[in-house]
Amino acid sequence: MKIREAGKIIGLLSTGLKNCITDVEGVIVGHITLDFPIDESGENYACTGVTAILPHKGNVFKEKVTAASYVINGFGKTTGLVQINELGVLESPIMLTNTFAVPAVTQGTLEYMLAENPEIGDTTGTINVVVGECNDSYLNSIRQFPVKPEHAIEAIKGASDRQVDEGAVGAGKGMICFGYKGGIGSSSRKVEGYTIGCLVLSNFGKKEELVAFRNAKEKGLSETSDGSIIMLLATDAPLSDRQLRRVAKRCGIGLGRTGSHFSHGSGDIVIAFSTAHKIEHFSVDGLESRIQLREDHPIMNQLFAGAAEAAEEAILNSLSQAVTTKGRAGRMVQRILF
Amino acid sequence: MKIREAGKIIGLLSTGLKNCITDVEGVIVGHITLDFPIDESGENYACTGVTAILPHKGNVFKEKVTAASYVINGFGKTTGLVQINELGVLESPIMLTNTFAVPAVTQGTLEYMLAENPEIGDTTGTINVVVGECNDSYLNSIRQFPVKPEHAIEAIKGASDRQVDEGAVGAGKGMICFGYKGGIGSSSRKVEGYTIGCLVLSNFGKKEELVAFRNAKEKGLSETSDGSIIMLLATDAPLSDRQLRRVAKRCGIGLGRTGSHFSHGSGDIVIAFSTAHKIEHFSVDGLESRIQLREDHPIMNQLFAGAAEAAEEAILNSLSQAVTTKGRAGRMVQRILF
Amino acid sequence: MKIREAGKIIGLLSTGLKNCITDVEGVIVGHITLDFPIDESGENYACTGVTAILPHKGNVFKEKVTAASYVINGFGKTTGLVQINELGVLESPIMLTNTFAVPAVTQGTLEYMLAENPEIGDTTGTINVVVGECNDSYLNSIRQFPVKPEHAIEAIKGASDRQVDEGAVGAGKGMICFGYKGGIGSSSRKVEGYTIGCLVLSNFGKKEELVAFRNAKEKGLSETSDGSIIMLLATDAPLSDRQLRRVAKRCGIGLGRTGSHFSHGSGDIVIAFSTAHKIEHFSVDGLESRIQLREDHPIMNQLFAGAAEAAEEAILNSLSQAVTTKGRAGRMVQRILF
Amino acid sequence: MKIREAGKIIGLLSTGLKNCITDVEGVIVGHITLDFPIDESGENYACTGVTAILPHKGNVFKEKVTAASYVINGFGKTTGLVQINELGVLESPIMLTNTFAVPAVTQGTLEYMLAENPEIGDTTGTINVVVGECNDSYLNSIRQFPVKPEHAIEAIKGASDRQVDEGAVGAGKGMICFGYKGGIGSSSRKVEGYTIGCLVLSNFGKKEELVAFRNAKEKGLSETSDGSIIMLLATDAPLSDRQLRRVAKRCGIGLGRTGSHFSHGSGDIVIAFSTAHKIEHFSVDGLESRIQLREDHPIMNQLFAGAAEAAEEAILNSLSQAVTTKGRAGRMVQRILF
Repeated sequence: MKIREAGKIIGLLSTGLKNCITDVEGVIVGHITLDFPIDESGENYACTGVTAILPHKGNVFKEKVTAASYVINGFGKTTGLVQINELGVLESPIMLTNTFAVPAVTQGTLEYMLAENPEIGDTTGTINVVVGECNDSYLNSIRQFPVKPEHAIEAIKGASDRQVDEGAVGAGKGMICFGYKGGIGSSSRKVEGYTIGCLVLSNFGKKEELVAFRNAKEKGLSETSDGSIIMLLATDAPLSDRQLRRVAKRCGIGLGRTGSHFSHGSGDIVIAFSTAHKIEHFSVDGLESRIQLREDHPIMNQLFAGAAEAAEEAILNSLSQAVTTKGRAGRMVQRILF
Repeated sequence: MKIREAGKIIGLLSTGLKNCITDVEGVIVGHITLDFPIDESGENYACTGVTAILPHKGNVFKEKVTAASYVINGFGKTTGLVQINELGVLESPIMLTNTFAVPAVTQGTLEYMLAENPEIGDTTGTINVVVGECNDSYLNSIRQFPVKPEHAIEAIKGASDRQVDEGAVGAGKGMICFGYKGGIGSSSRKVEGYTIGCLVLSNFGKKEELVAFRNAKEKGLSETSDGSIIMLLATDAPLSDRQLRRVAKRCGIGLGRTGSHFSHGSGDIVIAFSTAHKIEHFSVDGLESRIQLREDHPIMNQLFAGAAEAAEEAILNSLSQAVTTKGRAGRMVQRILF
Repeated sequence: MKIREAGKIIGLLSTGLKNCITDVEGVIVGHITLDFPIDESGENYACTGVTAILPHKGNVFKEKVTAASYVINGFGKTTGLVQINELGVLESPIMLTNTFAVPAVTQGTLEYMLAENPEIGDTTGTINVVVGECNDSYLNSIRQFPVKPEHAIEAIKGASDRQVDEGAVGAGKGMICFGYKGGIGSSSRKVEGYTIGCLVLSNFGKKEELVAFRNAKEKGLSETSDGSIIMLLATDAPLSDRQLRRVAKRCGIGLGRTGSHFSHGSGDIVIAFSTAHKIEHFSVDGLESRIQLREDHPIMNQLFAGAAEAAEEAILNSLSQAVTTKGRAGRMVQRILF
Repeated sequence: MKIREAGKIIGLLSTGLKNCITDVEGVIVGHITLDFPIDESGENYACTGVTAILPHKGNVFKEKVTAASYVINGFGKTTGLVQINELGVLESPIMLTNTFAVPAVTQGTLEYMLAENPEIGDTTGTINVVVGECNDSYLNSIRQFPVKPEHAIEAIKGASDRQVDEGAVGAGKGMICFGYKGGIGSSSRKVEGYTIGCLVLSNFGKKEELVAFRNAKEKGLSETSDGSIIMLLATDAPLSDRQLRRVAKRCGIGLGRTGSHFSHGSGDIVIAFSTAHKIEHFSVDGLESRIQLREDHPIMNQLFAGAAEAAEEAILNSLSQAVTTKGRAGRMVQRILF
């Protein structure tokens, strides 16, 4: 159940139709969930997965979108940010997975993009693949590398614009948030004709820090250590990469409101993109025209509020939508009860 | 009244003795408040001031302290951050005032420091003066430049380690926060033998954004525009400049929790320093020894929480301690009632 | 004499007509030079000045331009960068002066802009004034504050698009570069229909580091300490603020090629702007259209080369155009002989 | 032949004994070179490799070193920088390879480190692997993924402190610099008892940009496009991560002096570490003591110069040491003749 259905309303802005990131026209999301014993020891268990977010259904390398990143706390292994920061564009799907699956998922995504684009690495340059991660090693046998390159390809191929599955699915399968089962959560906001959506991979926080659901604390895990959160922001508002970075920064507000203090060992990272422009990889033009929101227009402040609200609600949805999950070494993480 | 006395407790950590930035051993604060008609027109009124924060009672140029800054939203005119970012040290008082008084206050502070240090600009290098600002032009005739260099000198000379005066005093005289009278606020936290204190100059937010005091909304100003906030953080914990920057970043959590979305036109800036080391300007040594907190020690996370809590409480104190204030053109800003 | 006239050609690109920053259509530059004994002691001497660079002849606050900054080495007191970094616009003249004259020059520029714009600080927000500085205290009695606010106003009012005076003029009056008289220098490059121009305030380097003019070393000052350089870059190429920042970064190449190692105590700072767009302060539109260069167009690389070449040549011009200069305490700095 | 043996002396400082990065006590380097036809088509050829640089012979995860990164131009896919920037430490070998081999090399390095540290991903947190890359697709069939995880492990295991092999070896096997065969180059400088060493993976530049070896231009490749350079800096000088970042920045000077303009499509990235402190992963202490160089000590400026000189000379060595190399589709890249 989305927390909104449970009567908990975050913020003042109204949500999009599906109240998730796919409310932003064109954005598609796919999950692959792994949930099986790796061997017969009873110790090793795959409790993990991959989630793919694409800014549109076309060829993302040939039609790039404006993008920006913001590192709230950099204890993390997310790849692809150096080039996003320099050029302000996204040219691959954004992939989410567990920390040690970053190489496998990068490899799979690369293979997918190379198959789709025979020019890459031959007659044109290379490609910047973006992979975010959290550490699911409490439930998942991360050292056994259960995620393979083909899982990334499957996640991309299965992406659709329907309501995003939340909780213990995809990359969220093994994640823990505030001591309860967390994982994938999403939410969206309408801002004067534009939509802004957030999808998170939540894996942070201690029970006692959780501000919402105070009365739900009894059953959470008390031994969790520092975790992380990846927050993806999509909008159809026409924003430059600098403007997107400003909006991305406001996701930290939502994160802080859930109770987080951006703890030391938490990789808290935001990646934002706008679908308003497609930037062609192959072009003979020297100049391009961009429409962008005037910086001082009231919509900018509403997008800021929308990012904060959607991030907070996405995190809470990652909790409320998650189911109790069994992982390695017989470990169990309870869903939150509220 | 401090909001804590009104029964509103922010966070889980306990406060220092005075619940303000001067709980950090050595830190001193001074205010100069201007409150007079500039001419007989009835239009022009000085409703402004200067606040000085010094890391210790000695010669700050000769005994510098470790420092860092973090720009939450850079719509602001704070000076001195370029050198803090490069070198990680503070070598002057930190001054707060209104936007157009930055030159006068820089000039006064410079004169004070030159008088104290005849070597500066002669036999040794120059000095980096740090001045933060907010725009108090709703109440203050900012275009008339009522603040003079000598006000900065007086603020420095009057600095003491007693309980900090809050609300409509010093640089806070003309500031407005969430549509109510704001200005100077301070709070502190104890963290396992260390103290972390925050002092803010609050001047941001719209009435409807204020999360606390929901029942107090009736009398606030509805026409306020984007404002700013300067947050100063002091601690005696031994932190490197990189660590201080990490702690400084967490002030944004406290700001977000009050209801702010770091609005477009708001200069939201944090400056942090540690009093644990004094770095001598004149030294014949090539090497120096520094003690610093281990990054993964639990105290680091508590300092993060302490920064967030102290920042939030300092902002609320800037409201609860402020009195209804009269300014230019017969304008009035009400104190919050709760 | 420009070093090009002495037969020294920097780089491969051709220069603009005047080989200075005013080759960029609309850009105007003004100098005020101070050169007088401050008292009868024979010790105190004003050997300093102010230089103003405006992106166009109109009202820069009402018609802002795209801008970016890049800090090569942040041992400096330049003001105004926080807001340029956040918003990517310049809304005031860029002023150059000595380190301790930053408050006076900020004040004067503020007064000029307030007189031109009665709305500022009353019915609209404040203004971000940008002032760069170097320390001329070897020749100039910097502690005596010879620069006054009115000098800034005069420098702005005297700005024109004619060939820029170089060497020991304006803010460059008391500056020292590689042990020789330095100061203001400028150069420009043509890049496929666009122009890129650089103006520097040079005040860095030791004699033995100077790569060019190896045979000129005998007469330079050997006792100089760390200094600074401010490099301003103007172009009519349509670049976003992110792209401008990329171009600005390449000024460091030119600086490095003269022999600098960006020494510890040197404030090496670049500010760049594009005149291609005027961004109106008052506008009812929510959206704006921007033309910008495609990132991968060969012109981008040529602008990079142009920035590096123009910066290097501007520095060498600041040397070759400077005259032997007398300052405080009977001190003298020789011009370079080559 | 090192270019110094050819009579070309870069800078003023003297080199270490081996004139390479292994002059820094403890630093070890290993190469794996791939050079074989991938199939019988005659088109697909493995002309690539892996290079591993370790700060010491011990367990780098258990004994981390201080580190910093600096992105000169971010058109690149280097991984691991987010965490280096946040925490200022290196806890894995630094690996170099081709762009599409980043996942395989990350995977191999991860497997090596997991085998060495059974606690990682089980009872302690994860590990941040650092991999730099350049695009060798002119000579190497990069789309065929010839580099496998085991190559990374072999490169690490083969690392030693002897004179570093340069030119067309390891990750440098397929790289092209200024149209000539480039690849791995290294150089070092002595600075008052300390050593600073640089190792580069060079893959950038057009023939006409090369400043040195002007008379060698005839045989270079004219069709090369934008490339990249990774520059690794090691020193035994006791520097904080902030200080290391300052030193790292100066590598751009050396790069610029070779003729580069940091072209648009070039990922120009510096990673620096100091071997002076070992930071233990497992520790019961809350505080640690660090010795660091005083910021204003003349040695700091010499380290700046040393970084610039060693980077420039390392690049030139990557050229002068390279041999003519045959790659995919019958392509050949000539060594430079001088």
